[in-house]
Amino acid sequence: MSELSLKGERSKEASYILMNATTTQKNDALIKMGEKLIEHKNNILNENKKDLENAILKGTSKAMLDRLSLDEKRLEDMADGLRQIVKLADPIGEVTSMWKRPNGLQIGKQKVPMGVIGIIYEARPNVTCDAAGLCLKAGNTVILRGGSEAINSNVAIVKALCEGIKESGLPEASLQLVEDTSREVANEMMRLNEYIDVLIPRGGAGLIQAVVKNATVPVIETGVGNCHVYVDAGADLEMAKNIVINAKTSRPAVCNAEEKLLVNKNVAEEFLPTIISALREKGVEVRGDEEVLNIVKDVNEASGEDWGKEYLDFIISIKVVANVDEAISHINKYGTGHSEAIITKSYDNSQKFLQRVDAAAVYVNASTRFTDGCEFGFGAEIGISTQKLHARGPMGLNELTTTKYIIYGNGQVR
Amino acid sequence: MSELSLKGERSKEASYILMNATTTQKNDALIKMGEKLIEHKNNILNENKKDLENAILKGTSKAMLDRLSLDEKRLEDMADGLRQIVKLADPIGEVTSMWKRPNGLQIGKQKVPMGVIGIIYEARPNVTCDAAGLCLKAGNTVILRGGSEAINSNVAIVKALCEGIKESGLPEASLQLVEDTSREVANEMMRLNEYIDVLIPRGGAGLIQAVVKNATVPVIETGVGNCHVYVDAGADLEMAKNIVINAKTSRPAVCNAEEKLLVNKNVAEEFLPTIISALREKGVEVRGDEEVLNIVKDVNEASGEDWGKEYLDFIISIKVVANVDEAISHINKYGTGHSEAIITKSYDNSQKFLQRVDAAAVYVNASTRFTDGCEFGFGAEIGISTQKLHARGPMGLNELTTTKYIIYGNGQVR
Repeated sequence: MSELSLKGERSKEASYILMNATTTQKNDALIKMGEKLIEHKNNILNENKKDLENAILKGTSKAMLDRLSLDEKRLEDMADGLRQIVKLADPIGEVTSMWKRPNGLQIGKQKVPMGVIGIIYEARPNVTCDAAGLCLKAGNTVILRGGSEAINSNVAIVKALCEGIKESGLPEASLQLVEDTSREVANEMMRLNEYIDVLIPRGGAGLIQAVVKNATVPVIETGVGNCHVYVDAGADLEMAKNIVINAKTSRPAVCNAEEKLLVNKNVAEEFLPTIISALREKGVEVRGDEEVLNIVKDVNEASGEDWGKEYLDFIISIKVVANVDEAISHINKYGTGHSEAIITKSYDNSQKFLQRVDAAAVYVNASTRFTDGCEFGFGAEIGISTQKLHARGPMGLNELTTTKYIIYGNGQVR
Repeated sequence: MSELSLKGERSKEASYILMNATTTQKNDALIKMGEKLIEHKNNILNENKKDLENAILKGTSKAMLDRLSLDEKRLEDMADGLRQIVKLADPIGEVTSMWKRPNGLQIGKQKVPMGVIGIIYEARPNVTCDAAGLCLKAGNTVILRGGSEAINSNVAIVKALCEGIKESGLPEASLQLVEDTSREVANEMMRLNEYIDVLIPRGGAGLIQAVVKNATVPVIETGVGNCHVYVDAGADLEMAKNIVINAKTSRPAVCNAEEKLLVNKNVAEEFLPTIISALREKGVEVRGDEEVLNIVKDVNEASGEDWGKEYLDFIISIKVVANVDEAISHINKYGTGHSEAIITKSYDNSQKFLQRVDAAAVYVNASTRFTDGCEFGFGAEIGISTQKLHARGPMGLNELTTTKYIIYGNGQVR
């Protein structure tokens, strides 16, 4: 039996205990996990230093180094994150509906944990702590497979967290880290159907596609966002400008950032020069289709490839469209089903856009940047699903559960 | 572009129209589909005859021939099935919750169609009609890939149904059949992520495993059931006998049939001779563990492999267990997460069993045979999910939907 299979077996066994843990037990574990993180801060920061040194040797970019690095403040934030999870309502056990059949059978639909969740992710060590906390609160054991860049930090963090879990009396195997960060072991994990109930990849498009292609374990695809903002004829152009600037520039590297701007031809002449100069002031490279170029001469032409691309950078492509229908078709053709927005004053067009755009989150007169578990009011999130199966959009604790039918009879046969 | 890709593209395009069809339009299509089935009955029955002749030449079993064969009565039943779907409530458009955030954003969670559903299935031509009707009612276009045994029947049925869809004014591409029944095309379909949103296999364990192993499109795994009935100490043994006989013998070839019987050691001496002779009277081959053999001498010994097997036949394996805990561990180890039952008079043991058994449907004092969309009151079913992602247990119209967040703002930025 491979080391990963052993981990899987232990996780499955532990899941039968964790599934039936009370909210009080789980909250107690979360608090102790936070305490241990602080107690072991010296070890964690030392191990993090090793990861940083290795990363510097490899010539890692400054932005990546920042994502990788921990300090006392960040550890405090992680512990605080766990305390926030304590405050969230426990979804487990809720019977969302119960009905009686003509034969007297009483059938209830109950929220129960998934069992064993696998998470494959990159870089940021705070994901290790967030994911561990959320999975535990929803009654799931978790097997984490982080990237090699953060392996020393992750080992230290998981060791501390497991100490907390153990002290609370819940099974230590509720949380396990895959220490072998080779691609072979990641592939093995994607096919560990015997033990893993659900796999959630978190990271760049490359990682997510690799998981989708190779996994036989059911996957929740997360995070790729080629998000559009469509500015309708007659829109409040001041509002449109604020929203486009916010959606594009407030945090361009995240999946809910705007990547494309569609402008109705009736407002193109008025809106394009303003928005393009405002975007450029923020350091955004602007690309455009032919009609954009006709209005603002010094814009680079967008290539065919641009329309399907998630830049995650200070780049935007702009297209002029004839009407809301063209905007909707374009979005349904090139979008990734993440977040799409219309800026409009038209009731009809707002309804059409809401109904016809096929995406996880569809906005009227607001920034796409709100697609986020905290902004939606879920308290925390494990990722943003861009598939249609199981969960779509920001996933909180509820999305880490499945259901079970509980049936009370008194001798019924069919 | 391959023929399947073309079908996929057409299905995707049609899905954007069908997604927004009204309930009235969809019901109209369902009624017309039923009418066309009857109108074209001669052609359908002729084509079915070809399939039957081919099957006879291949030496197909009588049971299989029966599943394959159509007659006027069966066609009437299929049309009636479509009329039943008309009566079901349309899940699409329901906003299951809507809330307001502190910044004034109003966020609603709305049920919407999946888009394009792929179904890979075997033999029975009535599945063609059921699946087409259910997918359409839930606003999804569907690509069906049936088995080669029923290809002539399926072509004729789909032709009739499409005529009905066309007459109702909905896109004809709402329903398409893959006429090339080769394995290559099935494999291509499993990887058609560009166009297919969800894949549902329906058939034997071999088919389902092939889809799970090969698909990159999100899959809902259905139907494999290694179901247990556990007879507790102090159970009403008359009730236990009725339930075991019903669960095992009323229809042994279906997935909710009992495959294993677990008997508490305190009732084994009293219960085993009775139940074994009752099972044998019904023509069931009984296998047992050592303790069973000690009580009823002429039983065949169950091998290690028996405990994980879905017989789908007049065979049962019986094991004596020390208590409810051992029954639960055995079920969680060998079960397929389908349907599990306890027969008991003990409040504590009933609660323990309901809470700790990890399966789609957990019964107290009732037959496992009730795990079925109609028996649960869903009106119809597209299959029984044995995975934890998205849907678990019988899947009705609701399970053929996904959600979309619709967000009303007035200029919010983050």
